[in-house]
Order: sequence, then structure tokens, then C-alpha cells
Amino acid sequence: MFNKILIANRGEIAVRIIRACREMGIETVAVYSEADRDALHTQMADEAICIGPASPKESYLNVQNIISATVLSGAQAIHPGFGFLSENSKFASICKQCNITFIGPTPECIDNMGNKSNARDIMGKAGVPIVPGSDGAIKTNEELLETARKIGYPVMIKASAGGGGRGIRVVYDESEIIKNYENAKAEASAAFGDDTIYLEKFIERPKHVEIQILGDNFENVVYLGERDCSMQRRNQKVMEEAPSKVVTEELRKSMGETAVRAAKAVHYNNAGTVEFLLDKNNNYYFMEMNTRIQVEHAITEMVTGIDLVKEQIKIAAGEKLDFSQEDVKITGHSIECRINAEDVKRGFMPSPGKIKDLYVPGGFNVRVDSAVYSGYNIPPYYDSMIAKLIVYGKDRDEAICRMRRALGEFIIEGVSTNIDFQFELIDSKEFIEGTYDTKFIENNFKY
Amino acid sequence: MFNKILIANRGEIAVRIIRACREMGIETVAVYSEADRDALHTQMADEAICIGPASPKESYLNVQNIISATVLSGAQAIHPGFGFLSENSKFASICKQCNITFIGPTPECIDNMGNKSNARDIMGKAGVPIVPGSDGAIKTNEELLETARKIGYPVMIKASAGGGGRGIRVVYDESEIIKNYENAKAEASAAFGDDTIYLEKFIERPKHVEIQILGDNFENVVYLGERDCSMQRRNQKVMEEAPSKVVTEELRKSMGETAVRAAKAVHYNNAGTVEFLLDKNNNYYFMEMNTRIQVEHAITEMVTGIDLVKEQIKIAAGEKLDFSQEDVKITGHSIECRINAEDVKRGFMPSPGKIKDLYVPGGFNVRVDSAVYSGYNIPPYYDSMIAKLIVYGKDRDEAICRMRRALGEFIIEGVSTNIDFQFELIDSKEFIEGTYDTKFIENNFKY
Repeated sequence: MFNKILIANRGEIAVRIIRACREMGIETVAVYSEADRDALHTQMADEAICIGPASPKESYLNVQNIISATVLSGAQAIHPGFGFLSENSKFASICKQCNITFIGPTPECIDNMGNKSNARDIMGKAGVPIVPGSDGAIKTNEELLETARKIGYPVMIKASAGGGGRGIRVVYDESEIIKNYENAKAEASAAFGDDTIYLEKFIERPKHVEIQILGDNFENVVYLGERDCSMQRRNQKVMEEAPSKVVTEELRKSMGETAVRAAKAVHYNNAGTVEFLLDKNNNYYFMEMNTRIQVEHAITEMVTGIDLVKEQIKIAAGEKLDFSQEDVKITGHSIECRINAEDVKRGFMPSPGKIKDLYVPGGFNVRVDSAVYSGYNIPPYYDSMIAKLIVYGKDRDEAICRMRRALGEFIIEGVSTNIDFQFELIDSKEFIEGTYDTKFIENNFKY
Repeated sequence: MFNKILIANRGEIAVRIIRACREMGIETVAVYSEADRDALHTQMADEAICIGPASPKESYLNVQNIISATVLSGAQAIHPGFGFLSENSKFASICKQCNITFIGPTPECIDNMGNKSNARDIMGKAGVPIVPGSDGAIKTNEELLETARKIGYPVMIKASAGGGGRGIRVVYDESEIIKNYENAKAEASAAFGDDTIYLEKFIERPKHVEIQILGDNFENVVYLGERDCSMQRRNQKVMEEAPSKVVTEELRKSMGETAVRAAKAVHYNNAGTVEFLLDKNNNYYFMEMNTRIQVEHAITEMVTGIDLVKEQIKIAAGEKLDFSQEDVKITGHSIECRINAEDVKRGFMPSPGKIKDLYVPGGFNVRVDSAVYSGYNIPPYYDSMIAKLIVYGKDRDEAICRMRRALGEFIIEGVSTNIDFQFELIDSKEFIEGTYDTKFIENNFKY
């Protein structure tokens, strides 16, 4: 096992990783930007090294400085968290070259899954259901028109290098497609330096249901059930639950086994998530695989009892999974609300600033993974998520009641937050019935 | 089900009960003393009624004012928490007369168990193992000497009306017994207004192991495993764990079934705890039954998944237990550290005052049940316990590592606390091995 791990991240996920390491008896090294001198992760780690100015490019994305900090501190491994360098295969390769363990899958896995049209090909070959679409990149207007006719409108134009919902256009009618294609190409070229475009059938009002998997270095892969992440605003998840109200035992098994097949196709060897679109008829289609720990991993921990961050570290250290698929039991229900410092009424504009007063909810089966404290100054340079409020209940009803209770207790003074908005979501008929889809927020809220 | 419950208590247990009510959709009425105007429970409840000055006698023990507040607010039930009026059978009777549901067992149960020598008699008849001792009260010096010879030294002289360790003397030699008996009688008369004295064999260096039970109004009683509460200072519990490291599956079943027998003997109908002394040879003896929710109830909730406060409310509302003994599964391990505002180095002297800064630990399987917030002024009139830090782990080792991690995160500035002391306990060889007994602190710490 490692003696010391460097955490190449900030915010609540850095704190989450420090906690796992501490419980495993592993020393931790935080890295921080000049804006994060007083951040919780900087204070909480055993050591902390400044790696540059506030701008992510110069600090949390600064490969050279992060590698130097690792060597300097004597850390044997880097945990990349999510975002920043977590799905950067070059970074994972450099770690390898420097004899530092990257806590994540191999660079090849990241590469195979990071390129969306490439991933689609691999999944198709592995027998994983994919949304009908083009065979790889679309190269000409003729090919575009022909493919769109074949798969049927509405279709989605996607940038191969895109992600998190960026670089996507939906076209309902043939008369609109050429224009949209050309605009998408230009945009992708500007945004990602890569104008590769592909086409997919547009699944109307789908649910976003994803399967958590764990694979070790010995080709053992298990699935840990699903998360319903359909509560999204502009493709950003806002609230998640596990299990999904619409997923039956049978569907869970089918999706889980499919996710394992997907992972095995790329010899996947760490924690990962296979994201699916689920339509009204329980057809599911591979969307993408996230080759990292996710924000919403905590709800899977609550319903399985498995500490995913510890498992990541153990796998990276070369340990075999010490449980098998039959040992994984989904018990009870968990919900997560992402608490963001943002002004909902002003278009969800980030609301950085000083937290003047803070009361964090507590009690039975309430978990808070947070990066803030009373008096903390939220810097304006990073993601607006400041805490995750996670509850567990013996069933979905209890989890909902508990989330309402816990949301009601949360006091954050000094900055605007989305707590009231989360109340609106959890009180909505669609959430209570479990029928909400990825367009629910867009279709029901004017903010 | 009740629409509104009044909570006749303060501190973290009042908050705990408010949380349970809120999750059940029940309105809450807090009562508070003049010293508790800014207390968390006062702020958190739906309504709050001042019931008198700081002195407990004039507020939290003021039956008339509490009953008036209940009638005034329209609450249908009173939850007494622990301490204060929770084991006062007269109060429970008055509630009944006023048509208010007392959330606890019948006044008869409280009475039967509240008088220690009486409880001993009942338990003996029910086949519950009791510590060898006198048949009820000792009336003469001759009876005293004869009984002591029969059961063998060392013996314990106990005041029948005592509790929580008060009114107890241990005598190792016959030459000391008359003097101790007379002093104990005088002391008991002064302290409790009752000089009834009885005699018991003194069990050397026992463990304190207690069984949580739940009984409903239909004579259904289940046991929810044990808690090891041997970590005590002057008979006050400091840290608890469930399950006990020394209790085998077989012993658990035996103690559990005995506790159920004890509860059934008095037609017990709410949450209760049967406390046992466990000697080195796994013999166990009934000590007393606590006819209320206990401070350490949370660790049982963590290992069973059962919300004890919700069960109390459901039972009091006349619901049947909706699970049976076979459904109760003990999974993983839980530890609780009581966080007290006290100055350990100055004889554990209470340390009231303003909390200037507060950081509460969080993350996976960490639970904090607390009554404090940043800026809160701890009044000097009440118990020094300000929070309970509870962790859960898949096994005892993980729970211990997690507790160390969580204790290390806890920051309370402005008052002294016992956090460093808790570190010493959890790091001790005896705790790690699980062999600590009720004299461990006394024998190992000089504070």
C-alpha cells in the first residue's frame, strides 16, 4: 500500500480523498492555487504545496508543477479526483513515465473512452446497445443527409471532442441540418481544436441512468447498481438518487451486466461509470463512460456500503477486489443534492464570497461532503459547488422526507445558494413520482 | 399518528427528536428555559415555549409548566428524551390524566424498574440472572452481616433509590461493613429521601454491556443487539460501541433473549435498555433497566438501520412493530464518542462559554448529533455533553480508523473539550483489544 498520496484537486473531492487516505493510514499531500491558501483541503492535508496562481491552467491543470510537487513530497501516487486532469490520458502517461501511480484506469482506457465516436465504435463491437447513428465521423454533406434519413429525425449533431453537454445540436427537420452541421463544425474547431462531428438519433425526454463499476488489474469487474441523474440543468446534474425509481431488478441486472461488458472491452481497471440514456420503453443506450470518480459517487456508497475512494486506492495499489458481484447488495435509498453557491434567480450566476455563517445539517443517515467552513471565502475561479448533501433512508419515501428535513436545516449566510431551488425540485410531482427526465428542469422552471 | 409533539427536553436529544418528527411530518413544540432562548432546539422546533428560569427544577423539571405548554400548543404527546422527567412515573401518570400521550412505557413499567430492589425481585422471578445479593432491603446489622457472609466479599452496599452510580459503596472486608452501611443509610436518606439499602456481590472489573429492546402495546418485544458501555468515568459513560468485541453470536442471543424476558415481565411497551454486568467468564447479571431512550442509542441505529426515536413515536401512537426478531440484522460496527465541554486536566470540570469557532466532521459514515453551533453560548446550568460523534464502519477496525479521522477534524474553539481525551481512549491498547472494563479509566488516567 502507498505511504503517501498527492491529491491533484481541490474542493470537496479533495477533502473526500484526504478522509479516505487518513482512514487507511496514508499520508496526504494537497496542492493548492494561490486563491486556495485557506481552502479546507489545503488545511486538512498532512502537507500542502502551492502549485501556481488562481487560474486553473496555471495551477490545477499545471502538469509540470503537479509532477514536481509529487516528486518533491515523495508521494508515490496521485489521485486526480474529478474534472481538471482526471480524464487526461497524457497526464496519466506522464505519471507512469515518472514512476508515479495514477489512481485511475490506464491511459489507454482513458483514451478509448475519451474520444466519443471511438468509444461508440468499441461499445458497438462489444455488443453494448448504442444510439443509432453514424459509423464514426461525418465527412460530407451527402453523408450527413443520408445518415440522418436512415436513423430518422430528430437527430443530434455532436462534436467528437465535446463533453458535459457542450458541442451538441438537435435537429428536427432536414431543412435545418446543413446549417447546424456547419455551425457545429466551426464551434467544435474553436472550442476543442477538433472539428470531428458525428450524428446520433435524438432520444426524446430520456432518463440519464448510469452504472457504477469497479474493475481491478486482474480483469475482475463488478457493477454497483445505478444512479438516476436525470435531474439536470443544461446537462449539469443537480440532484441524484440511487436506486432509480423506474429501474426494475431485471433492468438493473441487464444494465449492470452491459456496463461490465463495456468495461471489460477496454480492460478497465479502476472506478468508472457507464452512462446510459433510458427511454420510456426501458430501452437503454450507451452514452459515454466516465473514467474517474464522479461527484455523485456518494449515493452508491450509501446504498452498497462500499467506500469507492478506498477501493480506487486499493485497486491502484495492485490489490484484487475482495468481493464479487454476488456480495453487492443494494439496500435502502439515497439522494444527493448538490449545494451550489449561485444566484438561481439571476440565471444561476455563481455567487462567490465570504460565508458569514454556516450551519451544517446532521443526525441519522445525513452525510455532508463539503469544502467550506464558517468564515471561508469562496473564490470566483472554480466550480460553484460547495457541498453535497447526501441522505439515506430505509426506502425512497424516508429518504425524501429526510432530504427535506436536512435541506431545511442547512444555513449558509453571506452567499446565495440553490437550497430553495432544491426544495422546489424535491417537492415536484415529477420527482416524487420518479418520472422526471433530463428536460424536466428546462421544461418546468423559468429561471 | 400524532400531529404535534412537545419535547420536554433540551440539548442534542431535543434536536434528535425534532429531526425524527420532522421526517415523519409531525409538528414540534420545544420548551426552553430562560437560559436556552438561543439554544438550537428552541430555534429548530416549529414552536417554542418558555417554561421558566435556568434552574432545571423551575423549567425542565417543572411539570405544571410543561403540561400547560402542551395543552396551550395543542400537542397530543410529550417526548421526554433522557434525564429530566423521562423516568418519572408521576409525570407519566399526570400526562395520562391530562389525555396527553407520554412517549415511553406505562407509569407502572417505570415504577417497577425505577425502584432498584423491586426491579431485582421482579427480574429474579422472571428467571433473569441477577447478581447474588439480599432479598430486598437490609433491615438490621445482623441481616447485613449474615447476607454478606453468604454471598461473599467483596460486596456492594446500594441505595435502593440511587442511580447513575450514586449511593454505592464497595466493602472488601467484614470489619468495614457496619460503618459503611450506616454511612450509606444516612447519605441515601439525605440525597434521595429514602434510606432503603440493599446488598449485592461486587463483580470485579466487569464490562457494562446493555441490550436495546423495543416493545409495543401488543406484547411484541425484540432485542436490537448490545452496546459495550464499559468506557466509564465515575459511572458516567464516555464512549460506546456496538457490537461489543467480547460478545459472541451465542452470548448475544442469550443476553438478547434474557432482555426480552425481562421486558416481557413488566409488559414493557416502548424503547428500553436492559443493562448487564458481564464478568470475565461471560456470566452476565441484570443491573438495571432504563425505561427511556439513551444517549448512546445512535450506535444501535447505525448497526441495525432502525430509527429508534421514530419507533418510540410509532409505538406510543399505538402502532404494532412492523418487523420481528428475525428481521433484525447487526451489520458492521459503530462507535460513539461523547463530546463534552469540560476541562479534562482540571478534573473534568465543566467548561461552559461561547463557541467562537466550530468545524464539525463530515463524510462517509460519520454522524454528528449536536446541540451547538458557531457563536453558541453553552450555559453553565446543564449537562456538559454538547455533541455526540458517531461513526460506522464495515468492521471494527474501519470504525476505529474513522473515529480517529473524525475526532481529528473536530474543531471547537472558545471552550475546553474532551476531544484529546477521547483520542487517548481510542488509542489505548485496552480499547483496541476490546478488553477494557468499567474501571479502565479510573485505573489508567490520573486526571
